[in-house]
Parts: sequence; C-alpha cells; structure tokens
Amino acid sequence: MMAKPYMFTVYRGTFIQLPRVDIGRTKPELVCNRGSLWVSSADGRIKGFDWQARDDASFQALMTRNGWVDEAAVNGNGANGGTVKVKIVIANEDRNEFFFPGFIDTHIHAPQFPNVGLFGSSTLLDWLEKYTFPVESGFGSKSDPKNQDKNSKDAPPHALRIYDQVVARTLSHGTTCASYFATIHVPATNALAALCHLRGQRAFIGRVCMDNPDFCPEYYRDQSADDSISATRSTIEYIHTLDPNGTLVKPIVTPRFAPTCTRLALEGLGKLVTQYNPPLHIQTHISENTNEVALVKHLFPECPSYASVYDSYNLLTPRTILAHAVHLTADERALIRKRDAKISHCPASNAALGSGIAMVRVMLDEGITVGLGTDVSGGYSPSILEAARQACLSSRLLGHTTAHIKCKSMNGFEKTEGREKLSVAETLYLATRGGAAVVDMADEIGGFEEGMFWDAQLIELGGVKDLGDCPLDVVSNGGSLVKPGPVGNVDLFGAETWEEKIQKWVWSGDDRNTKAVWVSGRLVHQRT
Amino acid sequence: MMAKPYMFTVYRGTFIQLPRVDIGRTKPELVCNRGSLWVSSADGRIKGFDWQARDDASFQALMTRNGWVDEAAVNGNGANGGTVKVKIVIANEDRNEFFFPGFIDTHIHAPQFPNVGLFGSSTLLDWLEKYTFPVESGFGSKSDPKNQDKNSKDAPPHALRIYDQVVARTLSHGTTCASYFATIHVPATNALAALCHLRGQRAFIGRVCMDNPDFCPEYYRDQSADDSISATRSTIEYIHTLDPNGTLVKPIVTPRFAPTCTRLALEGLGKLVTQYNPPLHIQTHISENTNEVALVKHLFPECPSYASVYDSYNLLTPRTILAHAVHLTADERALIRKRDAKISHCPASNAALGSGIAMVRVMLDEGITVGLGTDVSGGYSPSILEAARQACLSSRLLGHTTAHIKCKSMNGFEKTEGREKLSVAETLYLATRGGAAVVDMADEIGGFEEGMFWDAQLIELGGVKDLGDCPLDVVSNGGSLVKPGPVGNVDLFGAETWEEKIQKWVWSGDDRNTKAVWVSGRLVHQRT
Repeated sequence: MMAKPYMFTVYRGTFIQLPRVDIGRTKPELVCNRGSLWVSSADGRIKGFDWQARDDASFQALMTRNGWVDEAAVNGNGANGGTVKVKIVIANEDRNEFFFPGFIDTHIHAPQFPNVGLFGSSTLLDWLEKYTFPVESGFGSKSDPKNQDKNSKDAPPHALRIYDQVVARTLSHGTTCASYFATIHVPATNALAALCHLRGQRAFIGRVCMDNPDFCPEYYRDQSADDSISATRSTIEYIHTLDPNGTLVKPIVTPRFAPTCTRLALEGLGKLVTQYNPPLHIQTHISENTNEVALVKHLFPECPSYASVYDSYNLLTPRTILAHAVHLTADERALIRKRDAKISHCPASNAALGSGIAMVRVMLDEGITVGLGTDVSGGYSPSILEAARQACLSSRLLGHTTAHIKCKSMNGFEKTEGREKLSVAETLYLATRGGAAVVDMADEIGGFEEGMFWDAQLIELGGVKDLGDCPLDVVSNGGSLVKPGPVGNVDLFGAETWEEKIQKWVWSGDDRNTKAVWVSGRLVHQRT
Repeated sequence: MMAKPYMFTVYRGTFIQLPRVDIGRTKPELVCNRGSLWVSSADGRIKGFDWQARDDASFQALMTRNGWVDEAAVNGNGANGGTVKVKIVIANEDRNEFFFPGFIDTHIHAPQFPNVGLFGSSTLLDWLEKYTFPVESGFGSKSDPKNQDKNSKDAPPHALRIYDQVVARTLSHGTTCASYFATIHVPATNALAALCHLRGQRAFIGRVCMDNPDFCPEYYRDQSADDSISATRSTIEYIHTLDPNGTLVKPIVTPRFAPTCTRLALEGLGKLVTQYNPPLHIQTHISENTNEVALVKHLFPECPSYASVYDSYNLLTPRTILAHAVHLTADERALIRKRDAKISHCPASNAALGSGIAMVRVMLDEGITVGLGTDVSGGYSPSILEAARQACLSSRLLGHTTAHIKCKSMNGFEKTEGREKLSVAETLYLATRGGAAVVDMADEIGGFEEGMFWDAQLIELGGVKDLGDCPLDVVSNGGSLVKPGPVGNVDLFGAETWEEKIQKWVWSGDDRNTKAVWVSGRLVHQRT
C-alpha cells in the first residue's frame, strides 16, 4: 500500500451495522449511529469513533481535541491549530447516505462468471457436466491444452479478462471479501490472487482439487492425488509470496466436493492443511442436491454420512467452509457443530438449480455458524444483497417444504408458524457478521468496532421524490418520466423510519446504491 | 393522440418474441427475426413487417417499394422519390439491442407503492391489517376523512404523487399494460385512470370494493353494498368518458376478495358486470394463503369451495382475473377452466408473504390461462422481469413442497423430476402472451403480429466487455473499476448465442436495460 499524505480518514455521517450476538439465542437488530469514525492510513484499521460528534460544532471540537486538520482545506495547516492531517469523507444525510459493513461472499466460483444466467433447467450433476466443467477447463494455458503441466507460467488472456470482471463486479456490489473457487490450473489461479491483491479485494483463493477419474471428465481433472496436492501447494506458495502476512489474500485448500476426489487426495489435503501454521482454511461443497447425497453414499459406503467423509480425512475444522448444506441430517449438523465447521448458505443458487431450501433457522438454533454465498454461477447474481433477498424469500417458503417438515419431526421441534422466516436484519447479519465468522475473521471484519479493518460500503438511497402537488398538471407528454430523486429503484416518500429505509434498500436496492467501497481503508470502488 | 408528421414508424433491427401456442400442449420457444416492422401513426398498430429487409440495400428497397422517405433526412422529400414520410427507429446490433413485446402486469396495487419492501415477517391477513389498509385509507380526500362521500372531487396530492410514480416506474420496467387495484376512493381512482391515460400506459383501473364490516376496518370500507356498487359505477362512468372506446384505459370491477365483501355486494357486482356491453372485466384474489382459504370456508359455508363463491355470484367469467391461486384444489381448477377465468401468478409476492408456491405447470397442463403479476406491494418489485425470475425460481423449488406432492397425488400424476420447472422462454411467454390472454387481449397485444398494437420495449444489453488482453498490466490502482461496455449487470463475453443473451437479460437485467418503451406506437418511456 502506498503511503497516504494523511494519518487518518475520518468518516462522518450515519453508520449502520449489526452488533455481534450469539445469533442462535439472540435475534440480531440493526443499530444506527450518527457521528464520526476514524481509520488509520497505516494499517486500514478503525482507531476510534465518536457517536456524539454529529453537528458541525461537535465535529470541530473532535478535530481540535485530536489536533487534526482537514488535508483538503486550503489553509490546511493551522486552520484549527491542528498538525495531524486527516481526510474527511461525509455520508450525505439529504441523499440518505450511510456507511455499512462490506459484504462477505463466502462461496463464489470466479471462472464460472461467463455462465451467469446460463443454467437452463439443469440440476447440480448435469449442470456440472453441461455448463461448468467446459467453461472451467478453458482456464488452462494454450501450450498445455490437456492441463498436464499446472505450473506452466501462462494463464490465457481470456481467463484474466474474466477474473478481472469478477473482481470488479463483486466490488461494485459491495463485496469486500470473497472466498473464491478458481479452477485446477495453477497459473490462472495465481492470476486471480494477483488481481484481488492489485484491486484490493480481500480474498481467499482456492485451486480446485478434482482427481477422481470415475467422476471428473478426462478433459478437466488432476492427473493424480499427488498432482492435486502438489499443484495446490504451488498456489499456496505463490500466494504466501504475494502477500506474506495474508493481510489481504490467503490461500484456501479446495477439494471440489467428495465425488470429485479420491480417498488419497482427500487424505493428502487433510495433511497439507496442518503443515502450515496456522492451519490452512478449507472450502468444499456439501449436501447440495439429493442425487449428489445419494452419490456420496454410493462412493463412500464406509462413511456413515456425507459430513463424515470430510471428517474422516480431517477436513472438518473451524476454518472449513461448507457450501450449501441443504439436505444435512441432524447427525451431520451435530458433527459440524462439534467440529465448529462453517456453512455458506447460497439461496439464489439453491433455488436456481432446484436444489432445495437449506434450514438456516435450524442451523442457527443449533449454534452452527452461517454466512451467505452467491455461488456464481449456480447462483445467477454476483450480489450478496440479492443473496440476502433470496435468503429471506426462501425462508418464507420453507414452511411449505417437505424437507422442513422432515427436519421438524426428526428434531422433535414444535411447528411454530413462520419461525423459519429470516428477517432483513438477520440476513444482513449473515451477509456481514456471519460471513466474517465463516471465514474465521469475526474479530477483523463485518462491523465497525475499534481495531477492525475498515471494510465498508457507502450506500446512497437517494432523495425523497417530489413531483409537486399536482402531477396531472405538470408532467410532460412522453419522453423520460422518472424524475431525479431516487437512486436506482429505491423510492422514498418521506415517512420512512431508518429501519424501513434499510428494508427498502434490501428489497429494491442494487449496485446503483453502492456509491463507494473500501477494503482495509483503501477505496476500491466508486460508482461511475 | 396528437397527429404525427409521419405516416409510419419503421422499426429496424432484431425482434424477439414468443409465438402464440397452446401452452398446455406445446412448449413455447423464443423466436428471433431480423428485419423491419412498421407501425401506423394513426392507430398505433403494426401494419406489416419484412424479415428480409436486414441490410441497407434491402432496407432501401423496402423504402422505395413503399414510396417511403425518412422524415429525418435533410432532403427528405425526394431522396428516393418517396412521398410518404416515415420515422425510422433502429435497434443497434453492436449494443445488443432488440425489440421485445411490452410486459403485462396482470395484478398490481397502485396505492401500496409506498410500502414496497415493507412487509416484515407478516403473512397475508396480518399484512393487510398492519401495512395495507392503513396506506390505502390515506387516498381519501381531506374533506372526507371517513370516506363517506366517494364522489367528492378532490384526490389528495400525495395520492397523485404516488400514482404518478407507480406509472412512471412500471413503464420504466417495460410494463406497457397493467391491471391496477386502486382504493375504495372514487376521486383518487379516477385520477389513476387519468394519469395512465395521460402518460399513455394501457391500463385496467379497479375501484376496490370492500363492504363487509366483519372483516374490513371501520376506517377503511364501503358503507354498504349499495355504496360499493354506486361508487364502482362512478369510476366506470368516469373512465368511459375519459376513453370512450377503451382504447387505452378500461374499468375493471374489483371485489377485493371474498372475505371483504358481503353477499349483497358480490351479487350486485355480478349484475353490474352484465349491464355493460361487452360485459366488464373483473379482478379479485383467490386462495393466496391457507388461513385465508380457511376464513372463506368459514364465511361462506354454503359454498363448496373458494372458487365457487365467486362462481355463485356470476363473477367467474372469461374476463375475470384471479390473483395468486396458490392453494386451489383440483375441483376449483376444473371450475375455473370451465368458466375460462384467468390466473395472475404472483411469485415474488407469494414468496415474500410466505403464501406458498402456485402450481403453474399443473394449471397450464389443464388448459388454464396464466399471466404474471407483480402484486406490488405484497410483491417487493414493480418489475415483471423480476416476476419472471421469481416464477422460474419458485417452480424449481416446487419439487420440494408439500403442496406439490399433495397435488400430484390428488391428480394421480406420475412424479417426473423437474417437470414443474418453468423455462426462461415459458416465463417470458407468461409475461407477454399469457398476460395478454389474461386481460382478454390476446389478439391485440403480447406479440408482433400484423394488426396488433405496437406495445413494445427496446432492450439494450450492451457491448462485449473488452479490457484488453492483460488486465494485470493495465488496470488502474483504485477508483472506478467497472469499464464501459455492459449496461447494468448483463455481462457478455462474446460467445453467447442470442438465446443465451436472452437468458442473461432475464437473470441479470433490470430497468437499465430497458432503453425505450412504446404503447400503441407512442413513446412512453426513454431511459435517462
């Protein structure tokens, strides 16, 4: 990071976040503070806040008290006697602007981005064969069409173009941290890591392991378990060189999912994880689709459950992200809870591929940590706001599913109508605090506590629409009809509480409302 | 409509639509034509098309053959010897622009627009009480706070402001025709009709009837069945004066739903419908929520089913729109089919309020006509594109619902995995042709046949993103990262077929992609 000509950035305005709670016991509620918060230029962390410093007078008092001077002021040095230069960033109340923690996408496949929206009527296993493996296989180098040499230096240009767009798009939707699946190819995977590092997005980068010739296609797989391990090690070493302290980008061990991996590969990956200190992060898929669950049962008859496959190879750890978890049994949930492994809930994908609806409320009640994932391109949108919407919607349909009823009887719960429903506040919790816990960074990101990284977004809802009192007299005939005022599709009429404004953001908002995004205090996206 | 200085508008470029099919028997498929189509300035109807007139030479030949001259040409009269002035509108291929039939929203509550996104965790009956009746009751006149005099002339200014924004928003999302529920108030309902007429949106306008004191709140209801009928008659007469031929705006008889209406009111409305020639359109709700179904059973013990309540008062006709239809029995579906009444499927609302998932595939198989509705504000979005998305998603979750399984066993169907799934083409069919049939205008709107109204939208997907070959070398450090090329969130990488482009539009598109909208040949919206 380049040295900045000011010591702090002082953010001023409205700050909305979800305080950390034990979400299985306490319903999270949004909290709104108006005041000032400052971030160190040196390390991008929050150094303090003052929720009293709202009006100009108290803000000036804060500046003076700290010896701060606005670096943008013409007579900067001395305007208030201060000697420490600060940059001031204001959220405009008139435009209903507020700061919100950055979103955390706990499950996204970067190479599948060209397939966003393309899935037809397929379900998981045929979708992999028809859409996914073909697009991912194209990330190898031209000189190595059979993907034999994963350490060849050249990633194909179109791979960089696609990865670049993924990072740009997710940033534009407020995703400050993403856990990426790449492909089996080392050079392209390393390029994704480099792009995240360059653009400043916090990321976990996983080279995908898939060596089982009985499941993976000839044209797209690791040649052996050894190949899986050594290629994974290559990307780990590259990323550790790129970002030695893992401040921004970290490797993550990524067995695609049980059916794609031989026992030898799973065993080797489990060992690889503990060869590093701290042990590496892990990500994979679990129980997305009923056919997949049946397949795993068939492939691993010695294991009592899908979850136990991963557990038996030491892949179920507190730093493991399990994507989907739609059809987990109570025993599997208990095992996951015991190992403190984490769940990435991907509702848009689960609906799009017809996988089913994950029982998020049950998992939360049982003390399992849950975050949100877009699962591009099983999921059709790179937006975590869309994932939050779909999490709300899915939970409202859960009362109508057999999976739900089965689960209730299995657990002996009383059926309470609507208790499954996730509120807007709860899904925003999953999108921020939940995701932070899923990537094992609950103390670092997801909120605005002192010491945390400034991973944040500035949301602009826009003004209250005012057409005057009698539009019948004043509207023009034809031409553009939507007048300035709103930003995107968020319509405010003036009577909304701040909580209602947040609801309108979640239900009607999109990337047009994401005005600016910061990671570790660095501005990484500004709306054009 | 003002006289235009040209006889035809000639649209040139790509035209995509769904040909009319018997959707219960034949799966609809998108059709793409490149060429020219012309619309009469006099009546806004399509007068012809030539799918051979693609390149400049054949287009010029078309112009010459018809004696047409481009009214925008400097030496207009005589450039090609033509004497008939025409206006030319081009869909730009390089920007992936195409013409598509306008969307038809078969169910939307205009006065609920300020509540978009506000529904908390409520379900239908408590949502009505907490959110809906309060906002709707505010559309009365100030001089008549108790809504006693529905013929008072003054609609409150904020009602006009809200209605104006509803019409502007729906147009901006490509809705060329909407079937609106207003409120119980005559002046505000008439104002909505006037606004649609002024802005040029095709609309059905329904004054809401609700006179049952056992269900409707004291502060918001018709005072008697007579009051319901006479106030409804007032709006009908106003609309018939405003638009004598019903070319653009038509009245629609609107008993809110069975629980809000006395038997006397239902009877009177059934009679009112046939006092006009042709008989009036009707809209209401049916079987949205299981508690509502139970309530109707309780309130109308003499009727064997919810559908039979409407039928027994002659309200089930070929011009009746029944919104929701989530929990219909096989007998009810058979009755609806027999009467040729129509269904408005509102998937976003049904998910948001946790109502359940309507069995669209079953209804289509049985020969029932289905269109899409946004159901603002039970639905959180005024966009039919969003409704289409949610229709796809819901159908993919239907295999997981008890309602579905119940239905299957009731009908003795074999369970075929995934057969419930609605394809993108099918939901676009519902959004255009289906909606046209629901509002009994299948010969007039929903497609590009000769003689139909030019109710259409120009969609711009944008260009293929090209960052150059090596973004690692060229991307700038910080600042805006999404480069020009795409429009909104539709990312094209150059290899997509036109069918895949349509899929990307449906899954990633929004109002940013709706560049222009026409109704009856009149330009009613242009993207800013």
